[in-house]
Amino acid sequence: MGFSERLIEIIHCLNKKWSKSFGYGKVKYDTTREVNAPNEHPVKAIGWAARGKSGELSPFNFSRRATGDYDISLRVLYCGISHTDLHFVKNEWGMSKFPEVPGHEIVGVVTEVGTMVTKFRVGDNIGVGSLIGSCGRCEMCSHNLENFCPEMIITYNSLYYDGTYAYGGYSNIMVVNERFGIRWPDQLPLDAGAPLLSAGIAVYSPMKYCALTKPGIHIGVVGLGGLGHLAVKFAKAFGVTVTVISTHPSKRHNAIEHLGADKFLDICNKEGMNAAAGTLDGIIDTASGVHNLQPLIAMLKYNGVLVMLGAPREPLKLPVLPMLLKRKIVAGSSIGGMKETQEMIDFAAEHKITADIEVVPMNYVNMAMSRLAKGDVKYRFVIDVGNTLTD
Amino acid sequence: MGFSERLIEIIHCLNKKWSKSFGYGKVKYDTTREVNAPNEHPVKAIGWAARGKSGELSPFNFSRRATGDYDISLRVLYCGISHTDLHFVKNEWGMSKFPEVPGHEIVGVVTEVGTMVTKFRVGDNIGVGSLIGSCGRCEMCSHNLENFCPEMIITYNSLYYDGTYAYGGYSNIMVVNERFGIRWPDQLPLDAGAPLLSAGIAVYSPMKYCALTKPGIHIGVVGLGGLGHLAVKFAKAFGVTVTVISTHPSKRHNAIEHLGADKFLDICNKEGMNAAAGTLDGIIDTASGVHNLQPLIAMLKYNGVLVMLGAPREPLKLPVLPMLLKRKIVAGSSIGGMKETQEMIDFAAEHKITADIEVVPMNYVNMAMSRLAKGDVKYRFVIDVGNTLTD
Repeated sequence: MGFSERLIEIIHCLNKKWSKSFGYGKVKYDTTREVNAPNEHPVKAIGWAARGKSGELSPFNFSRRATGDYDISLRVLYCGISHTDLHFVKNEWGMSKFPEVPGHEIVGVVTEVGTMVTKFRVGDNIGVGSLIGSCGRCEMCSHNLENFCPEMIITYNSLYYDGTYAYGGYSNIMVVNERFGIRWPDQLPLDAGAPLLSAGIAVYSPMKYCALTKPGIHIGVVGLGGLGHLAVKFAKAFGVTVTVISTHPSKRHNAIEHLGADKFLDICNKEGMNAAAGTLDGIIDTASGVHNLQPLIAMLKYNGVLVMLGAPREPLKLPVLPMLLKRKIVAGSSIGGMKETQEMIDFAAEHKITADIEVVPMNYVNMAMSRLAKGDVKYRFVIDVGNTLTD
Repeated sequence: MGFSERLIEIIHCLNKKWSKSFGYGKVKYDTTREVNAPNEHPVKAIGWAARGKSGELSPFNFSRRATGDYDISLRVLYCGISHTDLHFVKNEWGMSKFPEVPGHEIVGVVTEVGTMVTKFRVGDNIGVGSLIGSCGRCEMCSHNLENFCPEMIITYNSLYYDGTYAYGGYSNIMVVNERFGIRWPDQLPLDAGAPLLSAGIAVYSPMKYCALTKPGIHIGVVGLGGLGHLAVKFAKAFGVTVTVISTHPSKRHNAIEHLGADKFLDICNKEGMNAAAGTLDGIIDTASGVHNLQPLIAMLKYNGVLVMLGAPREPLKLPVLPMLLKRKIVAGSSIGGMKETQEMIDFAAEHKITADIEVVPMNYVNMAMSRLAKGDVKYRFVIDVGNTLTD
């Protein structure tokens, strides 16, 4: 959920050339592209695409580039369905480019490697997340922060360097530069591991960056959806005490009994909130709607940090005085760089962290989107692309 | 300026016993206290006090406690006039307790030491800042963060542990627990060094905490008053490139020619602001009025931090999305602990950092307050208490 709106700005951050090509605000179904897609590149591909803001997805014939020297080709096995996908297929941000093949939580098996590839061999399992390109030369790239590179390319609804459209993981095959492939540990399930590639790194990266991984500290997790449930799992693996903070008291049981959270706090319970004031070293806030930061900041200890992962459409009200007095911090975070994404996946494998998922066939995707819009999933749909996407 | 409003909440943070004693909101001139003050303690003292919200100060006879085992008694030589003082004497926060003797940028000479004192000897110069007490036992105190101690006591407009009122540095003598005395380096001027004790630590502490001291990085300083001009000086001493960001183009000359800032940016100059987007590693924001954070956050590089030192009376609008995408941070900070304050003073002495001051006699204090209210000072008034406060 939280990750969703971030992509708006990511795309706006792409350079002007691309912005012009995209023609933001003039979203329409591009018949030319649909017609040309199957012949644009040498390798035939099939996916499911949305053609308009109804968001209805249906089969789509397109093509992928041949395996370049530094590329890996893969057969897609599983792909998670994120809120980002939902927003894009329904054009909720006014920047979708139809036909749109979503999907940025992709797990597959390598079918071909380029001549210069060293990281993968044919037959290896591989993950592909939210990024498929960056310049590789800038300060950010040299610090393994490809996600901050000005020339960074997201996995779909973007233009690749060759000027062709990028299509996501709701498709049978993909081609990706090896830098953007994640080595998949043997012990990590392919299906339940897939959502880690965006939701997992979204919570892992700020926990590391903001020093919220020290055993014995106490953090809060606001919201118990795709991101929130993984935040609880990673925190527990780090040995951190976790309080889930939610507006839905009905989530208490699952938070504590199933996910292993230590405490549950109903944000509407003033007494409980007051008692918790000044007790948390940090908070991972996955709420993406407009919400009140004051009670969250009040829960932080001195030097505490509130990490915002959701981006409300309007600015939030920031109460500055309590931040000054106890040196509190509000930080933003989105995904992570490729090195850290690999580290997160390896950590997840070692600690048996996976998303709670419901595996669905490709032709269930429209129903899944409909249920996702209502929050009717615990906590992530994953499409069994490999077994159910047929010509 | 920025430091001012922080004291509101600091006082509210004191424990309930004290809050009740204070009777917030029922501010009035306490004739009983004025009458009792000269005989409350064994040592006669004289200061200048405000008696009501007109803010007019005049001589006030009171008394100080005898030198305890861990106490230092000092003769006050200089005391800076901060905006906090102005707010308190005019009761602008509705919590002033008259008669009010302000002053928390105090430099003096030790006249007596308690039997257990090891840090000072008679004749040493000494500084006293915004704090005169903390519990000494809690987690915060054990980490040298007395400023976060729940039992912390500020230098005036507060109750000391013995239940008597604390009076500030607009007075001929003081008594302070040695923990809250700062050893004064020989080479640091007594008058121009005094403002470092609150304004100096207010800018030094977050620069250290937020890693804004690395030579070669580039920071912005918003506002060029008491705090801002010291932020520029400390930054230059650290080898940091500094852009002063201001709403007053008239300050350009002084910022660059006199204070040594590298650049000056008029915040109303859209072209200049756009060109500066994504260029700053950090910003020290000393503005205390309601202001727009968006252009400041836009100026930060990835991983950049905006440090807020001023506390506007209303919450500020926080644009979350740009923070997410480049992992930007908004931090609050106020003063620092005693260890860091000593470190700051030693650093200032080594690097010849002092405040730009106008030294005034004690009986000029009302005129100084009036000019301060109009911003008519570059950049700090300091009262020559030692030579001009007479019975």
